[in-house]
Amino acid sequence: MGLRYAVIGTGALGGYFGGKLANAGHDVHFLFHSDYSHVAAHGLKVESVNGNFHLHPINAYQHTADMPTCDVVLVCLKTTSNHLLKDLLPPLLKPTTLVILVQNGLGMEERLAQAFPNISIAGGLGFICASKRGPGLIEHMDYGKLTLGLYKHEERDDNDREAVDQSLLRTVVADFNEAGVESHYSSDLALARWKKLVWNVPYNGLCVVLNSSTDQLMNQPHSLAILRELMLEVIAGARACGHDIDDSFAQAMLDSTRTMTPYAPSMKLDFDFKRPLEIEAIYSNPIQAAAAAGQSLPRIQQLEQQLHYIQSTYLG
Amino acid sequence: MGLRYAVIGTGALGGYFGGKLANAGHDVHFLFHSDYSHVAAHGLKVESVNGNFHLHPINAYQHTADMPTCDVVLVCLKTTSNHLLKDLLPPLLKPTTLVILVQNGLGMEERLAQAFPNISIAGGLGFICASKRGPGLIEHMDYGKLTLGLYKHEERDDNDREAVDQSLLRTVVADFNEAGVESHYSSDLALARWKKLVWNVPYNGLCVVLNSSTDQLMNQPHSLAILRELMLEVIAGARACGHDIDDSFAQAMLDSTRTMTPYAPSMKLDFDFKRPLEIEAIYSNPIQAAAAAGQSLPRIQQLEQQLHYIQSTYLG
Repeated sequence: MGLRYAVIGTGALGGYFGGKLANAGHDVHFLFHSDYSHVAAHGLKVESVNGNFHLHPINAYQHTADMPTCDVVLVCLKTTSNHLLKDLLPPLLKPTTLVILVQNGLGMEERLAQAFPNISIAGGLGFICASKRGPGLIEHMDYGKLTLGLYKHEERDDNDREAVDQSLLRTVVADFNEAGVESHYSSDLALARWKKLVWNVPYNGLCVVLNSSTDQLMNQPHSLAILRELMLEVIAGARACGHDIDDSFAQAMLDSTRTMTPYAPSMKLDFDFKRPLEIEAIYSNPIQAAAAAGQSLPRIQQLEQQLHYIQSTYLG
Repeated sequence: MGLRYAVIGTGALGGYFGGKLANAGHDVHFLFHSDYSHVAAHGLKVESVNGNFHLHPINAYQHTADMPTCDVVLVCLKTTSNHLLKDLLPPLLKPTTLVILVQNGLGMEERLAQAFPNISIAGGLGFICASKRGPGLIEHMDYGKLTLGLYKHEERDDNDREAVDQSLLRTVVADFNEAGVESHYSSDLALARWKKLVWNVPYNGLCVVLNSSTDQLMNQPHSLAILRELMLEVIAGARACGHDIDDSFAQAMLDSTRTMTPYAPSMKLDFDFKRPLEIEAIYSNPIQAAAAAGQSLPRIQQLEQQLHYIQSTYLG
């Protein structure tokens, strides 16, 4: 018997990653919001650089109360909707359920652990260019890797439970790899989250504030300098929090971005479609974590403040 | 015999300050650029909260070669045009001529002294809300003070010459006061320039980057926080360079801006009219001066870099 999966928030990430599992024959149950009726009637289409597929029929739901309890819950919501988890999660939970937050940013696992002190939690980082093109239609343009790591409850000291969670998460990693999603088990989720922030902090915010795409920012010396300085500040913040990232990682990120297809980061898409920006997860939480460790991040904070101003002025 | 004045760059500032002197009966000679023919035919109109006046006839010129040598040259160009001074100034100069740079920013006097090692130089800071409304038409909306201070040549050690310059500058201050422009003699030009930067650095740049007016920035908590942090960074830069400004000056600037008529700073007007931005004088030179004194100004630098990006992307 394989694992039973729930996908909460079937947008670009949930549709692609969960869709790949379902397409490989896994038992996956998808929560939809605005797309529910369309998907119930027509299924979910994924147009991927790795090959298109169409999930029809599909286990589609409009409410988690109608869903079965699951072994693994993949939370693919925007972090700005995480306040909904308090109501969304309970119908899906068994004593051993592992909830995986496939989201960018920092501090989401801590907040979930406060609301649900007894559940097992992991984090996921998707390295993927994908977007929802229309109702029930996901486009996957590039990349598609997934890094998964267990969240370690600070106050919980239960080695048996942790061994079970680790084994479960390794099975999830194996399921993804077999389904054609290159996945990696990380033994240091916090480090993985900070490394992803080295990309997300500069590109997401600057693309919004300077109303630009990644390639425009890469091709002008002053914006390139801002990107580099912001990356080095993220690395300084990570280091203050005990997660060692070498400064050379900044240049590696710049180099790899240069080879990417020109691309609007998720926050730029959120801005263009007038959705709330993930400021708290990507900016405020890392700033607070670094500050608690005695490290100020003035450039990141100024960018955060500019984003707050833009959100309240243009999206308010 | 009174002093003979030249005004180089008869825009809002040159038109108002020089116009007040001429209107009070002083011998003032104005260089015009695009407005020359209009002003030669119709004179210069100043619509001021302190009373309108119309200079007609007026000593208007299209080329400094046609102007007489003067005792005082008021340079009211944008700093982005200072490279023109090399050609504009020589016809106006006598051995005792005092050239006063009525401009925002830092470092302009040093650069002029390099190009003209033997002339006497002062700096002027206009605290004024004024703009050019049309050809030969200046509107003066609020304020109108002028602070003038002598530039001290670092390599020149000529007490007699300095005494003459000081006496001349004090006469200029008296001329302005008698002409109805509240003017002050500053014995510390560098300190006066840094104090003005405490306002100019945050408001000019942020109004451009966030496409906003000063009152919009004052009325949102996150932009207000950016303004305050930038002000404190300017003050830290000034202090590193040996010019002591108390941190409380930041709050005083915020408070006085709150009582101002909502207003677009000069850089915002420059951006809206697609003119070059005064990035070097207001941002780069203070950043370099502070860096030479061992003080990094990361927030100001990030704003400077954003302005460069915007200038090259939208005004290029």
